[in-house]
Amino acid sequence: MLGEIIAIGDELTSGRILNTTSHFAASQLFAAGHEIVAMVTIGDEPDLIGQTLQQALGRADFVVVTGGLGPTTDDLTNAAVASALDRPSTFYPEIFKKIQAHGNTLSANRKIFLEKLAWLPEGAHALHTEVKSAGYFLVHDGKPVFFLPGVPHEMKELLLETVITRLAVWDGEEVRKVRQKLFKVVGMAESEINRKLGHLEGRDPRVKIGYYPVFPEVHVNLTATGASAVEADGVFDKFNQQIESVLGPFVYGSDTDTLEKVIGSSLKERGQTLAVAESCTGGLLGHTITKAAGSSEYFLGGVVSYSNSLKERFLGVNRETLLKFGAVSSEVARAMADGARRQTAADYALAVTGIAGPAGGSEEKPVGTVYIGLATPEKIHDFLFNFSGSRGRIQRQACQAALDLLRRRLLDYELRTV
Amino acid sequence: MLGEIIAIGDELTSGRILNTTSHFAASQLFAAGHEIVAMVTIGDEPDLIGQTLQQALGRADFVVVTGGLGPTTDDLTNAAVASALDRPSTFYPEIFKKIQAHGNTLSANRKIFLEKLAWLPEGAHALHTEVKSAGYFLVHDGKPVFFLPGVPHEMKELLLETVITRLAVWDGEEVRKVRQKLFKVVGMAESEINRKLGHLEGRDPRVKIGYYPVFPEVHVNLTATGASAVEADGVFDKFNQQIESVLGPFVYGSDTDTLEKVIGSSLKERGQTLAVAESCTGGLLGHTITKAAGSSEYFLGGVVSYSNSLKERFLGVNRETLLKFGAVSSEVARAMADGARRQTAADYALAVTGIAGPAGGSEEKPVGTVYIGLATPEKIHDFLFNFSGSRGRIQRQACQAALDLLRRRLLDYELRTV
Repeated sequence: MLGEIIAIGDELTSGRILNTTSHFAASQLFAAGHEIVAMVTIGDEPDLIGQTLQQALGRADFVVVTGGLGPTTDDLTNAAVASALDRPSTFYPEIFKKIQAHGNTLSANRKIFLEKLAWLPEGAHALHTEVKSAGYFLVHDGKPVFFLPGVPHEMKELLLETVITRLAVWDGEEVRKVRQKLFKVVGMAESEINRKLGHLEGRDPRVKIGYYPVFPEVHVNLTATGASAVEADGVFDKFNQQIESVLGPFVYGSDTDTLEKVIGSSLKERGQTLAVAESCTGGLLGHTITKAAGSSEYFLGGVVSYSNSLKERFLGVNRETLLKFGAVSSEVARAMADGARRQTAADYALAVTGIAGPAGGSEEKPVGTVYIGLATPEKIHDFLFNFSGSRGRIQRQACQAALDLLRRRLLDYELRTV
Repeated sequence: MLGEIIAIGDELTSGRILNTTSHFAASQLFAAGHEIVAMVTIGDEPDLIGQTLQQALGRADFVVVTGGLGPTTDDLTNAAVASALDRPSTFYPEIFKKIQAHGNTLSANRKIFLEKLAWLPEGAHALHTEVKSAGYFLVHDGKPVFFLPGVPHEMKELLLETVITRLAVWDGEEVRKVRQKLFKVVGMAESEINRKLGHLEGRDPRVKIGYYPVFPEVHVNLTATGASAVEADGVFDKFNQQIESVLGPFVYGSDTDTLEKVIGSSLKERGQTLAVAESCTGGLLGHTITKAAGSSEYFLGGVVSYSNSLKERFLGVNRETLLKFGAVSSEVARAMADGARRQTAADYALAVTGIAGPAGGSEEKPVGTVYIGLATPEKIHDFLFNFSGSRGRIQRQACQAALDLLRRRLLDYELRTV
């Protein structure tokens, strides 16, 4: 189906806030097989809201409107819609009751505005039976129009839980079921993934495969639809299996997984611990590991040995090794990993030493040269990477490569150099 | 003036790419005193491009169009504009000559497309005499229309260098000069800044003050215009001085400054060094410091002592202190800072220990409790903060507060607890 996305809010047209919700809606709707005619962002202007909605209804099969649904006086979407579509504002006592129940936690100051949330254009249906958040839909000129809150997490939840499903039902006038999965891929370029999965694209009209680079990862979205849940499941399972078998260990997880969470779960399961020794990443590796809640169960900490003296003092790296091979070398990466593991008594230690730039490169070791050491209870590994890009991008790639090597080691996959 | 922003590209409507250029244009145009009617994003569809442009010309005083100007066949903006505005595609030999000169570095494969870049709608003027990048403007129905490339850095450069200046000239039919500055504020909430600067707003029609929360900082934008450079400078200087005097040491820098760069410059200038000891930030503090290129000149590194055993082993924190006061305490923050400074022989050491959550809080020390220690050549300071928000937000606030304390110490400002 052809869709149009309208985002409403003065904070968007003044550039105060970056509009990420329209982008999220477009990518999800596209992945679900729809095409977006236009994404329009306008301020809280009743006339303009009405005109924009009319225009969208004239050229799209469905419309998603976000923002302007709140209880304060500058939220004008509902009144504008009521007027533009000639659907008088109507009080919905059922919605008001639920809002009141939910609103008990609000301050008195906000409560007086709550009644406004229950005045919606005639023909509106709440999107969520729980009325956890504002959001409704109505059918106008035979086309579904969805009104979602502008708050990103509320909007995203309602879009995924209600809009995509309702559109799937609408499409083709039959109840179509949708199954979706986001594959998270590490260590393989988008073009390579594309090449490997190309033969699956367009093979079945019920299937869509989308590619989303989320530096330094690539995410692959699989959407399968069917007239019944059984059909959708069957199509999904077939393609899911094929993508998994083609990408193999390069897929580290799916949907809400992160590399650090996957590693954390694996370490927790084994009752093992991890330490780090960082040079060019300056703390990014430790920070990434501790983004996962509960990481204190398996992460002991480590050393940011930015200077050579700290590599000696905290990690016991030999001064001769530093002088002979240089701080950016496989020998020092190994010694750092070994030192971090011994000093902390962790089961595993990751070490990163490299040249993040912009200065410090040489012909022999250009900017982007990064050595990673991995010390395990059995042995010490070292790996050489040649990254490119800005200082920040090199740091992020180095951090991700280190985590991926540990993941492969924990899951018994081949340890490879990119 | 009233403006409209149109972004063109299938990669935007499919959600593959997040449109950040429209947001950048809106915020810069808004700061320069313009208002944005609408921001419209559409695919590479000639008819829709034409209609959208016509609509924009009908309701705005100027239009900024981005994207679709490239040399490949899917870039259709110029042809669509030529047709919609009835301005036949015209070959501009001057532009072609410059493109050819510039294009010598391109592959043969790309060169054959270059001629396309010199075919523009009748009445077009190159935006840049260097023709470094695609980009032109024309005046239609007495309104300026700007066509900019979709590549963010090219678009941003042309917008700032040519569009904003030309609009300033256009506005009021006189050459208006613009001066702008972004104040970067740390440790003061947006509402508080707003309250303190409120008396300056609306006092002079030549001045605009805007507030942009960039968590955990707040940026304040000052734009002053004048009929001449002298007038603009005079207005700018007056308001600049007033903002500086009101916000005082809460302003850590301006425009492209970052907190870590400001600290780095100050340390470099003094020939002094810094080390860190991190617990709840897990490496974020070190990582932030090493975001600044050249940080190895003053940053020695440090310890991520996530576990108590590492606090003892690497930093020499007393086991009794840990047991008596707990790892999250002013005593341990002091001991960590002192230990990091002694062990690394740095001039300054920052230590962070706290509860980032979501678990681990207690009634006495809820999630968000963070102690920061600062060891200097003269003494050891400690500070208690109570942050709120998600784990990630607490970590970022703790990191920023630590850096800000060091900045205040280096610049001899009062050291305060927020």
